[in-house]
Amino acid sequence: MVRKVAKAGKAAAAPVKAGPAISPLAPKTLANLPPLAGVRLATGQAGIRYKDRTDVLVAVMAPGTQVAGVYTRSRTASAPVEWCRAQKAGTARALVVNSGNANAFTGHAGFEAARQVAESTAAIVGCRGQEGFLASTGVIGEPLPANKITRILDDLVAAGAAGGWRAAAEAIMTTDTFPKLATVSALIDGRKVTINGIAKGSGMIAPDMATMLAFVFTDANLPAGVLQELLSAGVEQSFNAITVDSDTSTSDTLLLFATGKGGHHPNISKASDSRLAEFRRKLDALLLDLALQVVRDGEGAQKLIRIDVTGAETDAAAKRIALSIANSPLVKTAIAGGDANWGRVVMAVGKSGEAADRDRLKISFGGQVVAEAGARAAKYNEAAASKAVSGRSVEIAVDLGLGQGKARVWTCDLTHGYIDINGSYRS
Amino acid sequence: MVRKVAKAGKAAAAPVKAGPAISPLAPKTLANLPPLAGVRLATGQAGIRYKDRTDVLVAVMAPGTQVAGVYTRSRTASAPVEWCRAQKAGTARALVVNSGNANAFTGHAGFEAARQVAESTAAIVGCRGQEGFLASTGVIGEPLPANKITRILDDLVAAGAAGGWRAAAEAIMTTDTFPKLATVSALIDGRKVTINGIAKGSGMIAPDMATMLAFVFTDANLPAGVLQELLSAGVEQSFNAITVDSDTSTSDTLLLFATGKGGHHPNISKASDSRLAEFRRKLDALLLDLALQVVRDGEGAQKLIRIDVTGAETDAAAKRIALSIANSPLVKTAIAGGDANWGRVVMAVGKSGEAADRDRLKISFGGQVVAEAGARAAKYNEAAASKAVSGRSVEIAVDLGLGQGKARVWTCDLTHGYIDINGSYRS
Repeated sequence: MVRKVAKAGKAAAAPVKAGPAISPLAPKTLANLPPLAGVRLATGQAGIRYKDRTDVLVAVMAPGTQVAGVYTRSRTASAPVEWCRAQKAGTARALVVNSGNANAFTGHAGFEAARQVAESTAAIVGCRGQEGFLASTGVIGEPLPANKITRILDDLVAAGAAGGWRAAAEAIMTTDTFPKLATVSALIDGRKVTINGIAKGSGMIAPDMATMLAFVFTDANLPAGVLQELLSAGVEQSFNAITVDSDTSTSDTLLLFATGKGGHHPNISKASDSRLAEFRRKLDALLLDLALQVVRDGEGAQKLIRIDVTGAETDAAAKRIALSIANSPLVKTAIAGGDANWGRVVMAVGKSGEAADRDRLKISFGGQVVAEAGARAAKYNEAAASKAVSGRSVEIAVDLGLGQGKARVWTCDLTHGYIDINGSYRS
Repeated sequence: MVRKVAKAGKAAAAPVKAGPAISPLAPKTLANLPPLAGVRLATGQAGIRYKDRTDVLVAVMAPGTQVAGVYTRSRTASAPVEWCRAQKAGTARALVVNSGNANAFTGHAGFEAARQVAESTAAIVGCRGQEGFLASTGVIGEPLPANKITRILDDLVAAGAAGGWRAAAEAIMTTDTFPKLATVSALIDGRKVTINGIAKGSGMIAPDMATMLAFVFTDANLPAGVLQELLSAGVEQSFNAITVDSDTSTSDTLLLFATGKGGHHPNISKASDSRLAEFRRKLDALLLDLALQVVRDGEGAQKLIRIDVTGAETDAAAKRIALSIANSPLVKTAIAGGDANWGRVVMAVGKSGEAADRDRLKISFGGQVVAEAGARAAKYNEAAASKAVSGRSVEIAVDLGLGQGKARVWTCDLTHGYIDINGSYRS
């Protein structure tokens, strides 16, 4: 079995499945994550669905590690989501993630498979079953062969090492074209702590949340309640502000673990503590970084689109309008074609159901006003407007002129690549 | 100017713009609509946007014609929609429709352009301006050159004739690949009346309603209030039960005119009158026929998909679930690829926000149960399931197992054709 275990910190034994070409929106370089005190990682090949690539990640955390989570709002959530949601103690010792099978809509047997993986891991690590966290991503409705995972757990736990973040991010990929990694450091009361995060996701991405798994680890010493408050707030402007295709997964999972093994800062018991201001800001930045990497890897994406809505009646109204634009196939295909078709933005505002006054609406592409006062802008310039939607990065701004509500969301364009990926591959 | 007017009943002077190849889902033959007492039609070439094809339809109705309408719920509705909504008298003498320009988001000038067309028509026909109904379809945000229409109105009104339904349907096409026509007859108290309808639409199609124009004419003698009640009820199971891309147009307009010139049946003052039962049933069938022709011409459509949801908590919940499935890009691309990916149906049920119990959910493709009791069906047969999604017509049935709510909606698959049409053409 050892040959199937890639020790963390070394390259995986087998190359990661290449899949389609790397997204043109991928970061130029991958973040280099430092080791994190209190976290050991290992990846392995369970052969669940993929051949010749890693498909299992095990993270073992120091005793006392605190955890917070945010999960899909789907009414048909996967077995691992149900398992994680049920763990209320706020402590975690292990995380096991597999790719290739989502263990979703797999009935009672699916939940038993999840339990079996969690309890087997706990027995090896030496903790309670409820301190074992799980996530699965891949095809829906296939029974998960838990024994393929459990039979390599001994080796994986033994192989765990302090580094290996890139290998970890690679093991959880499905249709992703690049691994998603981010790291920041922050001072808490003058003591430096580190936050490392990995994520996966490229389709079935929509609030709330996405076919999206993200695992964030810090060596800060923070209780579960504080972590949950920080995470729930941070997710609104990051993972809950992105959409690729409006489709919400059964499996979305975002976990934040705090080992308390770095920094040695004083105990902090409230998220509102001013000594957490920098940590919160850096955590938010890391969550947004990971979320944008997911959009940048949107299936078939050729352009990253940022949508700012201002002047709506409320922030919630602004977000619904922004998502109506972001999810409109007609807006997304127009931008794919380099067509500054602001009429489709008007349409998407109109269909959102939120208050809008045609004569107060102002629409800009790349900072140029294209429509205002109920009609095309007087200074409208087709060539300049087309240029604003022709690059890799497109900015759409809509001001409703009604109130103070605002929201920012990100999406990508809708291209032939999306059809290719989703019309031929049972992901 | 006469050379630009195609007299109704004859072929238009120039061939209708061919556009992309005719949809493979198009009806084998076009319905042949009989003349309708009290309606005269003419089409012409105003040259608003298209060259070498007709782009204006004028219908002149007999004095006393009653009218009912259903319009888009968009908050950014077009000027013609605003014009029609404002006419409360319930009588109509003329309808002017242009293609190539939606007269939407065109500000005060757009409304004035609409008024100019309506009042010019009224002056020629000899009626009040508010008896002139309007619809425009095409690009959003371009000023409508009303004079291009008004300068040919004299000739068009003079050229009006009792037939010419196919030419009428062709003049209002935009990205449509075939004209949409339907006719039925019904008995009211033993007297035969006829209902003729035409429609256009192929993208930006979603409840409520669609980039969809439909005009239905009957020679029955029914007051506006009765017509409105029949129309509002009929639209729910037809035009409000179809979606191509979830995008709702600024211009959707469905008008029902009753000239009272046929049949000579007794006056009827209530929609609930039992003598209207057959008329209502036939009208509903005609509305559904036209609505399905719109879906069959969905941009890029290769397959017609019917979705039945039963066992939901309410009918409204069932419809939201059905539309969540119908609008899911992942469901639509899977079916395009002939992939019986029922996991994506589970996902779409889960994201709808409506109550669902994984363990009671039952999903069928083409009558074969593929998932039930929280997991893949015991008798699941991949080959048979794939076959069920491989033809031109696909039937998905979902039973929630919770209550009595049910709904049926139609959509089409999402293909490369949709991207081609919408990524390169400012429709």
